[in-house]
Amino acid sequence: MKIFREVDVAEIEDMAAGGAVLGTGGGGDPYIGKLMAQQAIRKFGKVKLVRTEDLPDDALVVPVCMMGAPTVMTEKLPQGDELVNAFVALEKLLGRKIDAVLCGEAGGVNSMTPFVVAAATGLPLVDGDGMGRAFPELQMETFALAGVSATPMVLCDDKGNTVTFETVSNRWTERLARAATVEMGGSALLAFYSMSGAKAKECVVRGTLTLCESIGRTLREAKANHGEPVKALASLLQAHNMFEGRIVDIERRTVGGFARGKVILNGTDDWKGHEMSIDFQNEFLLAMRDGEVVVTTPDLISLVDAETGLAVTTDSLRYGQRLVCLAYPCNPMWRTPLGIEVAGPRYFKYDVDYQPLAAAE
Amino acid sequence: MKIFREVDVAEIEDMAAGGAVLGTGGGGDPYIGKLMAQQAIRKFGKVKLVRTEDLPDDALVVPVCMMGAPTVMTEKLPQGDELVNAFVALEKLLGRKIDAVLCGEAGGVNSMTPFVVAAATGLPLVDGDGMGRAFPELQMETFALAGVSATPMVLCDDKGNTVTFETVSNRWTERLARAATVEMGGSALLAFYSMSGAKAKECVVRGTLTLCESIGRTLREAKANHGEPVKALASLLQAHNMFEGRIVDIERRTVGGFARGKVILNGTDDWKGHEMSIDFQNEFLLAMRDGEVVVTTPDLISLVDAETGLAVTTDSLRYGQRLVCLAYPCNPMWRTPLGIEVAGPRYFKYDVDYQPLAAAE
Repeated sequence: MKIFREVDVAEIEDMAAGGAVLGTGGGGDPYIGKLMAQQAIRKFGKVKLVRTEDLPDDALVVPVCMMGAPTVMTEKLPQGDELVNAFVALEKLLGRKIDAVLCGEAGGVNSMTPFVVAAATGLPLVDGDGMGRAFPELQMETFALAGVSATPMVLCDDKGNTVTFETVSNRWTERLARAATVEMGGSALLAFYSMSGAKAKECVVRGTLTLCESIGRTLREAKANHGEPVKALASLLQAHNMFEGRIVDIERRTVGGFARGKVILNGTDDWKGHEMSIDFQNEFLLAMRDGEVVVTTPDLISLVDAETGLAVTTDSLRYGQRLVCLAYPCNPMWRTPLGIEVAGPRYFKYDVDYQPLAAAE
Repeated sequence: MKIFREVDVAEIEDMAAGGAVLGTGGGGDPYIGKLMAQQAIRKFGKVKLVRTEDLPDDALVVPVCMMGAPTVMTEKLPQGDELVNAFVALEKLLGRKIDAVLCGEAGGVNSMTPFVVAAATGLPLVDGDGMGRAFPELQMETFALAGVSATPMVLCDDKGNTVTFETVSNRWTERLARAATVEMGGSALLAFYSMSGAKAKECVVRGTLTLCESIGRTLREAKANHGEPVKALASLLQAHNMFEGRIVDIERRTVGGFARGKVILNGTDDWKGHEMSIDFQNEFLLAMRDGEVVVTTPDLISLVDAETGLAVTTDSLRYGQRLVCLAYPCNPMWRTPLGIEVAGPRYFKYDVDYQPLAAAE
């Protein structure tokens, strides 16, 4: 398989920071993700990256990720072994050697989990993912939109328990795996959506890991050069600056294995006198400015620190933080009727139609 | 394998009625159990019974049963296919032909579920079970007391979903399988505790199915001969008549996948002026007479109709029913320190010590 580059400990920092931005509030704390991946690379060596287009058609590709409420992930640091256990158990179940690891979702932790498996197994890691962002439920994968089944799926916890699913639909996989995850203490590791290289070329969101790295590097360099990190980030992502303000209220609870809630910002600077409220279920799903819906899932809503441009995850929202709300278009696969049905605002019970956001200039 | 008898449609009636008595309120509605088993025997032919002592030491024996709240089982009639699916999936996972089917628990439905699998597969069914009664949780098996692991375990629902468990303890199997069962709608079918014939000889409660049949026949014949069914039943089981009365209050709710509650009887005849209250979690667990604990799990508490002696399950308790409370000793395996730890009153959070009940003369 054609490897286009290798990733070492140093590059991981940028990638995790970038993953957190695309995580749109979910996908886990980048600090934890970074530690997990760096530890694995130190132990097992560099991770080889392969481009989606360079996958052999008959290669067996398996995505991995962590499931659960980010609030729990932060308190219950994954060891990494569980991930490799899930991967190896799925390989055994499939009865065939897996050829490459794939990222299930972009996020602070979940852009990093595949690095742990790739390092431990020595397998190449595909530069891409199944969302181009983070989403709260596991049927919300571009893989699913392309007809790939989430099962056989293996879920492992930190205690050594393994649960294998073979379901009639990806929605059922989500329901049963969510119940198991809650029972396992709120977070679990999984391997799922096994597919061929040919199928991967149809449905992988390409270049996600290198985009994560570009995001992290952009922020780091802007800071180092005393530049404007948020502006540089917005320009890289072709993102709209939707709002700037301070958090005046946060409502947050962990229910049914999700971190759900709402955050309210009072405008500062150009946005003085205005208010923004953003609903989340692990990820930011819907933003309202002065009572009017301005952007919804599946388009991306990232809250970043007004100073540093670093992403703020839903579990690290704190009263008084000064944040900028950036919004930018999702991958076109999410804008199909099926994509909108699976991850649009109505799926989350919001009574609004999805209005595609144009890319900023 | 030495078959000592065959069971046809006609004999099923007595066995299901007897299973419901040993079910101590749980284990499902015998009417449903009977229909499932009779339908399977009509379709596939008679079921061959083998005695535990006649199992070859190297035989592979697999128990099956239904999991869930009896209240749900009654509303959601199992098709039987799910059971066979779980059994076949476990056989595939074990990579070896299963030689005999075993009963996981005695109960109105669960003494019958193994007949469905035995009929459909043509395999012999062991005359025994893993409780000698019914219990609410799946680590409460004499198999577990003898060190057999519940996993690998396969759980199937009526929709076609299959979940496989490989856990670090039987308590964890219970937790994870209960969560999946709740998500699946409150009931599911499973195959678990696979063991050798040699191990089965150590830990199977022997003769349960023929005991169920004797119970059913005793009740049927006493009724036909205008005799006293309850007296005949008590004599057969060496059971104490603890109370006779009418239901004056029932408290019942389905929580966490269990039917939990309490039933209160006001005494009639010899027990006039007295009161009995019985707590249940699927099964009757603790009986108090005039405020004093008189019998607890793991000993058996059966509520039977004062006229017919037929068992009343926790989900069919109705205001005004005239019932007799019978109590009789559990299998000695439950009276070991481990047995009491696993299924004694303190496990269910009752602040009383287990006092072994003597057999009635």
